[in-house]
Amino acid sequence: MSDIDVLGIGNAIVDIIAKCDDKVLQDFDLPKGHMQLISAADADRLYDAMGPAVEISGGSAANTCAGIGAFGGKTGFIGVVDDDQFGKVFAHDLNAIGVKFDTPFNEGNTPTARCLVFVTPDGERTMNTYLGACVELGPEEISEKQVQSAKITYLEGYLFDPPRAKEAFFKAAEIASSAGQRVALSLSDGFCVDRHRDDFLKFIKSHVDILFANEDEIKALYQTDDFSNAADQVRHDVELAALTQGAKGSMILHGNATMAAPSIAVETVVDTTGAGDLYAAGFLYGFTQGKNLDICGSLGAVAASEIISHIGARPEANLVDLAKKNELL
Amino acid sequence: MSDIDVLGIGNAIVDIIAKCDDKVLQDFDLPKGHMQLISAADADRLYDAMGPAVEISGGSAANTCAGIGAFGGKTGFIGVVDDDQFGKVFAHDLNAIGVKFDTPFNEGNTPTARCLVFVTPDGERTMNTYLGACVELGPEEISEKQVQSAKITYLEGYLFDPPRAKEAFFKAAEIASSAGQRVALSLSDGFCVDRHRDDFLKFIKSHVDILFANEDEIKALYQTDDFSNAADQVRHDVELAALTQGAKGSMILHGNATMAAPSIAVETVVDTTGAGDLYAAGFLYGFTQGKNLDICGSLGAVAASEIISHIGARPEANLVDLAKKNELL
Repeated sequence: MSDIDVLGIGNAIVDIIAKCDDKVLQDFDLPKGHMQLISAADADRLYDAMGPAVEISGGSAANTCAGIGAFGGKTGFIGVVDDDQFGKVFAHDLNAIGVKFDTPFNEGNTPTARCLVFVTPDGERTMNTYLGACVELGPEEISEKQVQSAKITYLEGYLFDPPRAKEAFFKAAEIASSAGQRVALSLSDGFCVDRHRDDFLKFIKSHVDILFANEDEIKALYQTDDFSNAADQVRHDVELAALTQGAKGSMILHGNATMAAPSIAVETVVDTTGAGDLYAAGFLYGFTQGKNLDICGSLGAVAASEIISHIGARPEANLVDLAKKNELL
Repeated sequence: MSDIDVLGIGNAIVDIIAKCDDKVLQDFDLPKGHMQLISAADADRLYDAMGPAVEISGGSAANTCAGIGAFGGKTGFIGVVDDDQFGKVFAHDLNAIGVKFDTPFNEGNTPTARCLVFVTPDGERTMNTYLGACVELGPEEISEKQVQSAKITYLEGYLFDPPRAKEAFFKAAEIASSAGQRVALSLSDGFCVDRHRDDFLKFIKSHVDILFANEDEIKALYQTDDFSNAADQVRHDVELAALTQGAKGSMILHGNATMAAPSIAVETVVDTTGAGDLYAAGFLYGFTQGKNLDICGSLGAVAASEIISHIGARPEANLVDLAKKNELL
């Protein structure tokens, strides 16, 4: 009997989001559509150049958990924030949406992580993350009991960046696998895949049951420009893969079977921040509710369509209502 | 020769905004459509009961200055924040929108003020403010030179709540009047008027050139249920009054003359936070640009219509473009 459906482990981040022109990305050499890690000093400099912003809780796996919580799924999150104002905001927003989050606050001199998100007129987001207190996440934050009690332990690839988080990541995966529970992984970002390709491949083959990736990430993983080729390869490495292709929808690979889930059109793409995270939320909610895989993909599409229609990566609308409207629940 | 058009002085606040049902207002006895002051402990308790939120810089006069900055007007702001994360957010957002803000950060144990804003499905906002570092604003923050150099010194009525801010308020008004510059006042809130009616009336008669009030506030000031009666009275007490009536538009009283400016319809009223502040922004921008008073009112209506169409009290769209679209600039 599992206490929770999905336990997410990830970097605990508050997003600082501002609209900008493409010229700003060029002026500051920001990698459009990607996430780059920056130092505290660079974060200060970049913030000075940023327009008026809004602050909204973020973090990839945390966004996914928030989405699952919004669907009504039982979910928890492990990640480290400082006991500063942003840390309290992060904790509040998870608990308020129904995600069990009780990792103790770090009480050091390292502030809660923040991500400076630049959103261009096309809705694309370019992310610059100062990891701050996230570097404090280590194996000691992983509760054996909590991981054992989760149907799915969901890990974000970004955790491979801070060294001790990677240890926490492996510890959690080992516990989950030994307990006969599932391990899910999101590849997070093409650049992140480039940084850790060999480790990712080894880990996927040995531990991962469910893999989430977008087109860019899966091609980066297998170092190919051909999406079909990458899809063929991942089929051999993992039991279940959900590959998202933006407006083209998603492809779900299960053994030899392939299912497609269309995307859901939105009037205006306002901000793509969290699109992949919320796809994973809808998918995993459906999966833990025993839905067919194509329905899982469509639930992912519903959640992703909601998140890209407004600023920020946390759901604003009622996801259950949206899913019902699309006859998925 | 004035260096700046409008110098705003007000409480420096970060808004924490969440949607809620009307039931929450009843459960916590929150005064719908109003602002109430709360203690730090009450702020913590209320925050625990709040849904997932977003953080956006706020503060009444600060919102007005941000709006004037968004129009391209020359504006500055005086207010006190702590050197904590919210304080840095507040300072960043003003400077980023073109408002000169250089009041030194307070470095005490009192955090930056925050306002817990509950937005009901009708778009109405109910505000609960913990004043925090705002209580540190005193006469010493008022630079004589800066006030003398401003065409208009704009004061929010909320400044009557923290005692030393009231002293700062009077000091600034004296300097502005003595320098032959104008003093503008926003009445802020009906409850605020109730708390300080006699002082407000005395101050308006002696110092105020331009008064902003909504229907509720002007009726509270003159203790009448009849808007026309209140309008007749204010005409004798102040040179210029701009009275807003929500969707009914605004009425501008100047000597014996009365001008009307219609409101601008929006598709959905998402969040009324800042409607009055942004009306004042458009009005004062037009006024300092030498526009006719009815155009000033319409510029106020444009800015107010933008702000109520999204969450938060800081403009997201280009106000100049909106004004041009309405053939006002």
